[in-house]
Amino acid sequence: MLSKNTIKHITSLKLRKFRLAHNQFIAEGPKVVKEFLNSGFIVEQVLGLPESPVFELRENFPDIDFVPVSKKELDRISLLKTPNEVVAIVERPEAGLFPITAFSGIVLLLDEVKDPGNMGTIIRTADWFGIHHIVCARDSVDVFNPKTVQATMGSLTRVRVHYADLVAFLKNIPDDLPVYGTLLDGKNIYDTPLSENGIIVIGNESRGISSKVLPFITKAVYFPHFPSAQKAGAESLNASVATALVLAEFRRRGTVL
Amino acid sequence: MLSKNTIKHITSLKLRKFRLAHNQFIAEGPKVVKEFLNSGFIVEQVLGLPESPVFELRENFPDIDFVPVSKKELDRISLLKTPNEVVAIVERPEAGLFPITAFSGIVLLLDEVKDPGNMGTIIRTADWFGIHHIVCARDSVDVFNPKTVQATMGSLTRVRVHYADLVAFLKNIPDDLPVYGTLLDGKNIYDTPLSENGIIVIGNESRGISSKVLPFITKAVYFPHFPSAQKAGAESLNASVATALVLAEFRRRGTVL
Repeated sequence: MLSKNTIKHITSLKLRKFRLAHNQFIAEGPKVVKEFLNSGFIVEQVLGLPESPVFELRENFPDIDFVPVSKKELDRISLLKTPNEVVAIVERPEAGLFPITAFSGIVLLLDEVKDPGNMGTIIRTADWFGIHHIVCARDSVDVFNPKTVQATMGSLTRVRVHYADLVAFLKNIPDDLPVYGTLLDGKNIYDTPLSENGIIVIGNESRGISSKVLPFITKAVYFPHFPSAQKAGAESLNASVATALVLAEFRRRGTVL
Repeated sequence: MLSKNTIKHITSLKLRKFRLAHNQFIAEGPKVVKEFLNSGFIVEQVLGLPESPVFELRENFPDIDFVPVSKKELDRISLLKTPNEVVAIVERPEAGLFPITAFSGIVLLLDEVKDPGNMGTIIRTADWFGIHHIVCARDSVDVFNPKTVQATMGSLTRVRVHYADLVAFLKNIPDDLPVYGTLLDGKNIYDTPLSENGIIVIGNESRGISSKVLPFITKAVYFPHFPSAQKAGAESLNASVATALVLAEFRRRGTVL
């Protein structure tokens, strides 16, 4: 039986201040929990229905505490609307643990993404396209927000997310490294040469790329509507969708053409 | 001053059963409300801060009731976490009001998309790419869910969403109309000829395309990972991201190549 204090502790991790205070975050569902178990992250405890397939893995992880709970208890500790078998308490890695020292390949730079779901979907998409590093403005949503962890579907174990002062970061990159950004007055992306190395800047959901970051963009690109002559239509794309389209075009050029 | 009953009525529209009972739904925020005002939808009432730019439009819409409310009242009627100036009560169009009679261009078919945010983002993306019709399985999330309306950012006024029995629908399409679906064992989309007319099937978030719909797929395509030799990586993409990538590739072929 879980104590009231345990339940209170776990549900407190919904809030960033308690995730920071306890240096922990929550991952839920068999797929996501398995990814964290098999990653470099330190899983402190797995609480779940004893019949969950995740419990079959307990022999492989003798140092991790597997706590069987009832359906009712799971409902109380889960931060999801539809609790999904298991909840893991994972140690939150220290900020700055993963400095980016080399710039090879594509690095994604998020200029204040605010929505936890968007952040998670961007991490999942980056993982799909083989992007290993994401640099976020310090005011971005916390990557260990439960909705973000959930939306990554485990990709957080493979993509490293760094929080940084974007201006300081951009001042320190090699001069010849191209910095791409999607701007309404940019060049049609299909007519723009895309490099194998570089930084892709994704703007905030409502105001786009900030005025502080804007001067660092060396290649402004634009993703065309269709049909181009269309009068009315969506004025913009969701931030995670825009990210996916840009990454796909970089990858298509590199691999297919 | 808003009455308690008015507040109760508006907040009840969060739930599908009340949206159906009252034949109404809620749209919020200046951008989205303006889009509905200027569309074929019937806006019944606009409630908002009198200083909102939306209130400057009241002269253009003499038949619509504009109700000034205080910041505190707005907080009470808004279904958003961060209320945004205005809330509109919009008449929910009758189901079956828009039958698809002709198949020209690309029609998107959603095989039970369950997440309201995904549904909204798919509608917004479809609008961006000039798709005018989406057919959804009857069990899909309600398109007038407030989270969906919000995520469309007004695109719901331009994209027509139909709920249908997908099997019955697919039985009635012309025999030679290609039906595309993304499947893990499909052909690399970059190596597949894509037509100007056709149906694109998007599967459910967790189980993909259902066994009922599967036999109707005539062109199974697959969106490649990158790098292709990569061992680990995200196993799948978010449903709205997958939709965007497929639509972008159709449009790129049609317009650029």
